[in-house]
Amino acid sequence: MNKVDEFRNYRTKMNQVILEEDNLFFKRFFNLDTKAYEEGALDAKTKEMLGLVSSLVLRCDDCVKYHIEKCHELGVTRTQFFEILSIGNLVGGSIVIPHTRRAIEYWDLL
Amino acid sequence: MNKVDEFRNYRTKMNQVILEEDNLFFKRFFNLDTKAYEEGALDAKTKEMLGLVSSLVLRCDDCVKYHIEKCHELGVTRTQFFEILSIGNLVGGSIVIPHTRRAIEYWDLL
Amino acid sequence: MNKVDEFRNYRTKMNQVILEEDNLFFKRFFNLDTKAYEEGALDAKTKEMLGLVSSLVLRCDDCVKYHIEKCHELGVTRTQFFEILSIGNLVGGSIVIPHTRRAIEYWDLL
Amino acid sequence: MNKVDEFRNYRTKMNQVILEEDNLFFKRFFNLDTKAYEEGALDAKTKEMLGLVSSLVLRCDDCVKYHIEKCHELGVTRTQFFEILSIGNLVGGSIVIPHTRRAIEYWDLL
Amino acid sequence: MNKVDEFRNYRTKMNQVILEEDNLFFKRFFNLDTKAYEEGALDAKTKEMLGLVSSLVLRCDDCVKYHIEKCHELGVTRTQFFEILSIGNLVGGSIVIPHTRRAIEYWDLL
Amino acid sequence: MNKVDEFRNYRTKMNQVILEEDNLFFKRFFNLDTKAYEEGALDAKTKEMLGLVSSLVLRCDDCVKYHIEKCHELGVTRTQFFEILSIGNLVGGSIVIPHTRRAIEYWDLL
Repeated sequence: MNKVDEFRNYRTKMNQVILEEDNLFFKRFFNLDTKAYEEGALDAKTKEMLGLVSSLVLRCDDCVKYHIEKCHELGVTRTQFFEILSIGNLVGGSIVIPHTRRAIEYWDLL
Repeated sequence: MNKVDEFRNYRTKMNQVILEEDNLFFKRFFNLDTKAYEEGALDAKTKEMLGLVSSLVLRCDDCVKYHIEKCHELGVTRTQFFEILSIGNLVGGSIVIPHTRRAIEYWDLL
Repeated sequence: MNKVDEFRNYRTKMNQVILEEDNLFFKRFFNLDTKAYEEGALDAKTKEMLGLVSSLVLRCDDCVKYHIEKCHELGVTRTQFFEILSIGNLVGGSIVIPHTRRAIEYWDLL
Repeated sequence: MNKVDEFRNYRTKMNQVILEEDNLFFKRFFNLDTKAYEEGALDAKTKEMLGLVSSLVLRCDDCVKYHIEKCHELGVTRTQFFEILSIGNLVGGSIVIPHTRRAIEYWDLL
Repeated sequence: MNKVDEFRNYRTKMNQVILEEDNLFFKRFFNLDTKAYEEGALDAKTKEMLGLVSSLVLRCDDCVKYHIEKCHELGVTRTQFFEILSIGNLVGGSIVIPHTRRAIEYWDLL
Repeated sequence: MNKVDEFRNYRTKMNQVILEEDNLFFKRFFNLDTKAYEEGALDAKTKEMLGLVSSLVLRCDDCVKYHIEKCHELGVTRTQFFEILSIGNLVGGSIVIPHTRRAIEYWDLL
């Protein structure tokens, strides 16, 4: 579970640095980020899947990891996870493949 | 309904040009594109929402229009549509706003 | 001044549609967008230049137009404007050139 | 031949505005742009194909048009053109399809 | 040759995980990926150069490494390799420089 | 100061490899890169801030590090640095957050 902990610890540590800064933008932006994924007309699970595929096509490994954790928690199955990856690879092309490899590795660590 | 027809007609006409070309790649790629959105472990509606948000964060207006049509057909509500747009704007930032304006305009034409 | 009015009118009309929707995300996101460019440790003019160059390298013509208007209002000179464009073209490469052409055309309309 | 002329005229007119500006960066950058595609260890035709596929995956329609003209001039065949498009669609994904439609339309106008 | 082996081993291992999954999309997509670079109206060497420059402007280090290996195998010279990098840097801008550094380092390991 | 030295050493070493190559493009491109940030109608500090925000929204960590060093040298304060990051996150969205974390970590190492 080392890679998972490493990711989580760095994320937590640096988010704290950001939120301790006297900068109103980041406080509000982080708040908006949390709220956008809350249950609404779409359920939280669907929203996390939307966050995952968006992060994948934009090729942000850390964002992908974060949404993988959330999807995993909210009951997305491995087969469903692969279908999300399929859409991401189709839309974003073969440059998404290396991120897909790392995404699957991370999923399998959870 | 002019803008909708114009988009559909151009798309149909040019897809035909592509598929009539003796090029195996495009036949297979277009086929893959169709199949990826079919009902599977995830339902077709969820997949179209994934396609929509991916297209939005990658800022491809024509792709957005296409998935808007599909989402609309498959019963996504306007409120749900706005929540998909929210995730896209959060993840992709304020550069997504102009595409959001055009997306809403297109939705309201349907 | 037609192209300028056309851009402004469409922008205003669609922003109204978005803000009239009962969607808290967009109200907050638009508010954040406004506040981020307000005078702070950096002055508003510098912030608008940052917004302009970001929009340029991300190749969002409408965002570029918006920040051009603001830069123009806040006293950025045409020579300074060309230096912002230089940084954008250097960092973002020759794919930024077509957006640069349109940016200059828009500046000269103001 | 209207769309072709329109593209060429606007390009020429705005390049002139840029080069007439007393800005050394753009003079050098445009010069670098011209020189990079000249015959070298790779021939000019291969370089234009590289320019075309790069412009396609970065989804810059005007850049695509420019390199289509050059490829066409230098003897790239329509079948080869479709193979360049194939690589671009594979690498860049289905978001490249709308640009592919416009690219083929432009090629067929020449 | 450590960095090269590390890259190859991880790639092989994860591709196997993907292909062993009961997911038809990835089997077809990987197949399409292989076939797109096969000899056609354009020779395989030209296609790999197209794959390389596309990967470079899209700034995917792993994709760049893969196409570097192929270009190297198919007889692209170091001087030609630098001309491909030139086009990539011109089109994609100075943000491509860090990827260029890593690309050259990888080439020199082969 | 290890991470800083590691970054600087690799950068210096590979730039030397590039400049020792008999390739005129890179000599000119690197020269253009240096000159673009020199004092002009905009001062060097403003130009480095433009370079920083451009690198951030394009999510190039190495470019961000380079411009952080320059901004730091030229007297940008930590509060101003956070405002540049704010614009970058607003324009580029939540996918910029992981790069923001690494940017702040790097700033605090200087």
